[in-house]
Amino acid sequence: MQDLVDRFKAGETRALARLISLLENEDPQHEELLKELFKRTGQAYVVGFTGSPGAGKSSLVDQVVKQLRREGLTVGVIAVDPTSPFSGGALLGDRIRMQEHALDKGVFIRSMGTRGSLGGLAKTTKDVVKAMDAFGFDWVIIETVGVGQAELDIMHVADTTVVVLTPGAGDAIQTIKAGIMEIADVFAVNKSDMPGAEKIVTEVEIMLDQQCDQAKWRPPVKPTSSLAGTGIVELLDAIKGHRQHLADNNILQIKRQQRMRAETLEIVNFKWQQKVLKQLNLPGKVNDLLDQVVQKQLDPYTAAHAILEYVADNQTAK
Amino acid sequence: MQDLVDRFKAGETRALARLISLLENEDPQHEELLKELFKRTGQAYVVGFTGSPGAGKSSLVDQVVKQLRREGLTVGVIAVDPTSPFSGGALLGDRIRMQEHALDKGVFIRSMGTRGSLGGLAKTTKDVVKAMDAFGFDWVIIETVGVGQAELDIMHVADTTVVVLTPGAGDAIQTIKAGIMEIADVFAVNKSDMPGAEKIVTEVEIMLDQQCDQAKWRPPVKPTSSLAGTGIVELLDAIKGHRQHLADNNILQIKRQQRMRAETLEIVNFKWQQKVLKQLNLPGKVNDLLDQVVQKQLDPYTAAHAILEYVADNQTAK
Repeated sequence: MQDLVDRFKAGETRALARLISLLENEDPQHEELLKELFKRTGQAYVVGFTGSPGAGKSSLVDQVVKQLRREGLTVGVIAVDPTSPFSGGALLGDRIRMQEHALDKGVFIRSMGTRGSLGGLAKTTKDVVKAMDAFGFDWVIIETVGVGQAELDIMHVADTTVVVLTPGAGDAIQTIKAGIMEIADVFAVNKSDMPGAEKIVTEVEIMLDQQCDQAKWRPPVKPTSSLAGTGIVELLDAIKGHRQHLADNNILQIKRQQRMRAETLEIVNFKWQQKVLKQLNLPGKVNDLLDQVVQKQLDPYTAAHAILEYVADNQTAK
Repeated sequence: MQDLVDRFKAGETRALARLISLLENEDPQHEELLKELFKRTGQAYVVGFTGSPGAGKSSLVDQVVKQLRREGLTVGVIAVDPTSPFSGGALLGDRIRMQEHALDKGVFIRSMGTRGSLGGLAKTTKDVVKAMDAFGFDWVIIETVGVGQAELDIMHVADTTVVVLTPGAGDAIQTIKAGIMEIADVFAVNKSDMPGAEKIVTEVEIMLDQQCDQAKWRPPVKPTSSLAGTGIVELLDAIKGHRQHLADNNILQIKRQQRMRAETLEIVNFKWQQKVLKQLNLPGKVNDLLDQVVQKQLDPYTAAHAILEYVADNQTAK
């Protein structure tokens, strides 16, 4: 393992790929690996792209990556698809994308599907962000399909979140309904050469007029065309503008500190639940107590209290 | 408190109302109250009604309640609206509904909105189901607005779940997309006198042809009109048919036992998180450890391990 860490620190892309696989598989060593890398994290700027399927997020991200490379910045991309059972860049589209950047060491693209639970996917995504951050990429971009709760959870890790809309049947309204409004720092209206794009821009602007607290950041709405490659520089400027806003108001630091606290507490709860689960898989006190509840010999509250005490004691004894 | 429990056990409706308020307010005594009542639970048959807003769930439930009363059965109704900040039957529609049954001691209707978190609403709803069950109602009906995750969580408590659809723009398809398919035991196509009702019935039947494992329960699809009062007996027969299916195959008992185990473990995790939260609100070890993470003096895994140990020890010492 120390060999892997050394090669990772030396900047070997294959070591990064290997590390990400260990994180995805929740290899027993993954915790040790993340411990080793923790001090190197916190340097990358993390940007999330989300929006309805078919909004053209992948090609938009590709254009953004190209522009960042022109500016000499390195980029790690995590393409998350909670509806896909595949991981590890096995998707056809991603193989094509990866080939395009295959000779460029300044870009690393990784696809992630859901192997286990969606909650697990959000956790693994966060770990992969940390790995890419520690590897030294200037930017890490997370791209998610859809706008469900899992995607919203994943977006918590982003410093700037871009919501991608397209001209089409009530798309803007639908997306906004799904609670996206609160997480958008920048709106991209992609496929801006299609009819109806201006209407979407206007609709979103009207909505922002109504809803935005003027003292807070007002998300810019940027028309883009990932096909024609137009509007990309302007979109990037909007993202950089948001970054500047966060830095100027000391928000970035506070947000990141809150995130670190929250993530640490998530690990505490995750470890706790693993301990409970371990007891559930063994015959003994915890299962006895649950059986007593099922047989109505014991009420759930008294049982819960005894289980809590037993699992906690068991923790201490170890 | 013992006085309240005695009056509750004697069947005083006002004692039930008071108890539900204590549960809603998460009164410190609510745990003791639930402990007292636990042995009385497990008798009521619990039915959930869910579906899009405007599907006419409330009036459909009213018709079902009337029919159950004709059959001499008593019913408790919990009307859950996660989008409403109101609780306690304060909604206009519910006041009207309650008046209709005001003189009938065999019906009790309670509205619940979201005071705290949605997760909290699901927990409180489960507690109120237990209270109504322990009070002695033959049936407890839970009615929820919408088909989001919170509603799905609430429906876990139901023995039979009725999904209410209506003729209208793609309603069936939309609802089915939202993951309702898996929780529906019976479909009611309400407003069946409106154009398009037959089409919905056919659509759902086709979908069931494609998706249903033939060995399992196939949800009946029942046209109803809560306005005209038609199809209500048939809908109730379908619900009773599902109940019989559960009983015949010993599924009801197994489901309820699993639910009791799961609920007990939820209480364990809830209590654990309260313990962590308590430490977060105090200066001391846990906040010190989190501060060390924020200052990058300690990695989150080492900190999480230490926090887990500290909170567990603290539990044991108590």
